[in-house]
Amino acid sequence: MKLFDADWAPSPRRVRIYLAEKEIPVERVQIDIKGGEHLQPGYVALNPQRQMPALLLDDGTLIDDSLGICRYFEALQPDPPLFGRTPLEIGLVESWLRRVEHDCFQAVAAAFRNKVSAFAGRAVSGEWPPIEQIPEMVDRGRLMWAAFADVLDAHFAKHIFLVGDYFSMADIAALVAIDFGIGTRLPDPREDHPALARWHCAVSARPSAAA
Amino acid sequence: MKLFDADWAPSPRRVRIYLAEKEIPVERVQIDIKGGEHLQPGYVALNPQRQMPALLLDDGTLIDDSLGICRYFEALQPDPPLFGRTPLEIGLVESWLRRVEHDCFQAVAAAFRNKVSAFAGRAVSGEWPPIEQIPEMVDRGRLMWAAFADVLDAHFAKHIFLVGDYFSMADIAALVAIDFGIGTRLPDPREDHPALARWHCAVSARPSAAA
Repeated sequence: MKLFDADWAPSPRRVRIYLAEKEIPVERVQIDIKGGEHLQPGYVALNPQRQMPALLLDDGTLIDDSLGICRYFEALQPDPPLFGRTPLEIGLVESWLRRVEHDCFQAVAAAFRNKVSAFAGRAVSGEWPPIEQIPEMVDRGRLMWAAFADVLDAHFAKHIFLVGDYFSMADIAALVAIDFGIGTRLPDPREDHPALARWHCAVSARPSAAA
Repeated sequence: MKLFDADWAPSPRRVRIYLAEKEIPVERVQIDIKGGEHLQPGYVALNPQRQMPALLLDDGTLIDDSLGICRYFEALQPDPPLFGRTPLEIGLVESWLRRVEHDCFQAVAAAFRNKVSAFAGRAVSGEWPPIEQIPEMVDRGRLMWAAFADVLDAHFAKHIFLVGDYFSMADIAALVAIDFGIGTRLPDPREDHPALARWHCAVSARPSAAA
């Protein structure tokens, strides 16, 4: 199998951190996003969604979503579990994964892709006809970013991780979303959210965060 | 345990169909969305996200997301499996679930919530300060709705369900998203997408679809 990866982008980082936590080695192929390699016919023929990560299996099947790839490996190698150890944890990890995606990651993506000129006509990631940028979505994304930082800070004032004292895939997704926001120059929420900053420092200190 | 439900809304329907497929009985409490009961202090104290569905466990723990609730029950009662029977199916079901959510359900929600006057100041679901409607998001949602119907039609021309011949949670999510779009008066994609129409007819004919 081969993992199509991109150093710069946030979604592939979810998979890299996951694989590092699980100590699963996978052959990687770098796709040059800044050079537009993901928009060229070669990659589009492989993955019409034009996104990374994508996992190509030996029989030609493609798993084209970061969490889909992680859950595939989780089923192959359950230990250590990162999607929950009990039914309740499994439910809470999924709930946080979806909330982080909707309330944080997509808010950052909206603030970024509706603003940066390189995404003109491609304001939404994926397989689409031209989608024009909407400047008001930048402000909405910034509003959601600020509000969700408050939610996380209040949560981490009471809990070590998103699901109690259990480090999970939800923390990986949240770390990637927060770093995506900071990296795209949204206001750094660590400066005035001490509990969020403590959590961010703890998860960033894990060796997997550098993967 | 108690399931906070709302007949009219799309996300609770995901859970109702799932529970019907699994034949799992759960006590339900109806929340009156049209009367604004989910915005009143009683429900907000229980669920700050102001959303349904939400599953309240006997120990007071709340699982506040539709897929989180389904995965909780899936761990308690794996058979019949609706999130995949093999590692590959598990990966593909998750990939389709996330794509349906992002490319279809959120597109419908954007077209609906940025237009209808009842959602003025609440253009995004969840726990937020006021978020104003952005009229351009209605057009973007309609564009994504039309484009994703083409994607589904091409897929269903080759496959019975989203993951091959295996009916899964991804089909449930897609049915709910498509019916949400039709119910909110987006153009009915069945009229000019025969393969999508065949799939829609088949999944709608399952007794669970009426749950």
